Amino acid sequence: MTLSGKRQRGIIDCDVHPYPAHLDEIRHYLREPWKSRYKGGGRGMYDNPVNNGRMDARTPSGGPAGSDPAYLREHHIDLYGIERAILLPRAFCNLYPDPDFATAVAAAFNDWLADNWLDRNNEDSLFKGSITIAHQDPAAAAKEIERWAGHPHFVQVMTDSGARAPFGQRQYYPIYEACAKHGFPLAIHPGTDGVGINIQATPGYPTHFIEWHTLLCTSFMSHLVSFLTEGVFERFPEFRVVLVEGGVSWLPGLMWRLDQNYKALRYEVPWLKKLPSAYLNDHVRFASQPIERPSNDQHLLQIMEMIDAKTILMFASDYPHFDFDSPKYAFPKLPEELHQRIFNENARSFYNL
Amino acid sequence: MTLSGKRQRGIIDCDVHPYPAHLDEIRHYLREPWKSRYKGGGRGMYDNPVNNGRMDARTPSGGPAGSDPAYLREHHIDLYGIERAILLPRAFCNLYPDPDFATAVAAAFNDWLADNWLDRNNEDSLFKGSITIAHQDPAAAAKEIERWAGHPHFVQVMTDSGARAPFGQRQYYPIYEACAKHGFPLAIHPGTDGVGINIQATPGYPTHFIEWHTLLCTSFMSHLVSFLTEGVFERFPEFRVVLVEGGVSWLPGLMWRLDQNYKALRYEVPWLKKLPSAYLNDHVRFASQPIERPSNDQHLLQIMEMIDAKTILMFASDYPHFDFDSPKYAFPKLPEELHQRIFNENARSFYNL
Repeated sequence: MTLSGKRQRGIIDCDVHPYPAHLDEIRHYLREPWKSRYKGGGRGMYDNPVNNGRMDARTPSGGPAGSDPAYLREHHIDLYGIERAILLPRAFCNLYPDPDFATAVAAAFNDWLADNWLDRNNEDSLFKGSITIAHQDPAAAAKEIERWAGHPHFVQVMTDSGARAPFGQRQYYPIYEACAKHGFPLAIHPGTDGVGINIQATPGYPTHFIEWHTLLCTSFMSHLVSFLTEGVFERFPEFRVVLVEGGVSWLPGLMWRLDQNYKALRYEVPWLKKLPSAYLNDHVRFASQPIERPSNDQHLLQIMEMIDAKTILMFASDYPHFDFDSPKYAFPKLPEELHQRIFNENARSFYNL
Repeated sequence: MTLSGKRQRGIIDCDVHPYPAHLDEIRHYLREPWKSRYKGGGRGMYDNPVNNGRMDARTPSGGPAGSDPAYLREHHIDLYGIERAILLPRAFCNLYPDPDFATAVAAAFNDWLADNWLDRNNEDSLFKGSITIAHQDPAAAAKEIERWAGHPHFVQVMTDSGARAPFGQRQYYPIYEACAKHGFPLAIHPGTDGVGINIQATPGYPTHFIEWHTLLCTSFMSHLVSFLTEGVFERFPEFRVVLVEGGVSWLPGLMWRLDQNYKALRYEVPWLKKLPSAYLNDHVRFASQPIERPSNDQHLLQIMEMIDAKTILMFASDYPHFDFDSPKYAFPKLPEELHQRIFNENARSFYNL
């Protein structure tokens, strides 16, 4: 499998993380005063106390996991027969109180990703990119989206789930308008929840990383219900969302609960034209990792039916993170058609690959 | 069916709300300065914009729903053949910044409940009560629990899920020690989430009641994971919790996710002696209302198996609230043994009735 020539059909991996080998790679794209101020980003108080990156993913030269495209190909892409990898860089720009700084860091990550991972001249790129935005300044984020529209290998916009308001609220609409205009889905990824300027979506701060990480799903549940009840998909009929790393098994119960409430409370949300859950198939997708894996495989297969996985679920590995889902072992044996949908066709269609 | 004499076997309803007919009924039990300050409590900005109480539950004399024991018996207890009703008054004392005021209001509700709904001299009371506490002051809450220990008809302690810190954290332990000492489970009920001094368990404030109400489950998920990861059930082996009105369908996925994380991160929580989910059966129960009801009955039956409903689920109606679950219609047809467990035996055993 090579970068040139038509790529063989294989797995589409919807969540792979490329990292700069050194912060100077990002500083290179920043102007002052941001260049001097930039010290990288991270979760700070919710850092993984064991290892957030797979130890075996460190590069042969000792660089950070995910920082060497050649090694990433050998260690992940070629090993599993991956046809395309959707790259989600970790800029952590949503941490910053200063929206100008946040916007500058987002732009720097986009320039870095375009220059180092996405070859504009290669029609058949293995890697597809995400446009990082700082949702603190929706107008600036919309401009950043415009800046990359037309690039052949950026396939979506991305932001972290950490926020100061649920994502269905109207201050964010310039972002969704730009996404819809250019056909970019918005990918939401965890990482800044409860840190920096962002609100923690639990009743107070969790104590441990295991607790914080397990409960990341509460941010995703909140944002999804907000999108649905605020009527974002009525206002922007072309707008689409993909929830990455937020889990999937909470979806059926949450939609049942929301649909039930809608029957009693539709008076509040008259802009909805159908049951809230009925917007999912046209507008929302889920990346699978970390798939919640029960000891009883049947239970997962039942959940897959409840969430309509054949339509909305797309495989993701989260390489090179500690909770990586192996394409070989993350799922139990699936019916062939469902397997094809999850590991290839749903993403191919969603991203128009 | 009468209050005197052995009650017939029927449904045990784990969530019925008694209301004072007038705030003066509560003021009667308050001393100054609290008596003058008390103006009732509520959710304020997240009030139900339609009707929070069933319109048909207003009393014949025009009083608030749930305020007349005789009418409640006729309209709910006798209609469905309810053997026991666990009463959860709505004091909303967790709203107050002043822990002395909060503690006084909690105590007043307990006195009011004991005098008006729980007949100490009747051995076979239809109604069983909950001891309201203000978790803002755990030491005072423990004293309030002590005050009622030995009363024949208080069967649990209760607090709202709205909080400033997850309930597994150690500042709350005097409450759990008192609960464990006297064999009282702690019931957690929604209602003050995101209002008063309490943190909203979503990334920022929801816009609508439908959104806030649908997402109440995030508080419950957070508190449960906190109990489990902090090792509360190792520290207090006799301590038990019942989650009321927080939903149940999120449980399987959340436990799968937590158990998976435990395998990678057990280093952080060395006090756990088994998988986090393995503590549920001995320590945690769920009241069913509002049961998430899918259009496909099989899906709910599958969820029931995943959560081990035959062990941990107890029927609740939430009378007289808008989203009341009818004992007749809330569930699809259940296997006889499972029905018996959910509608009677699990609660009988949990509350030692």
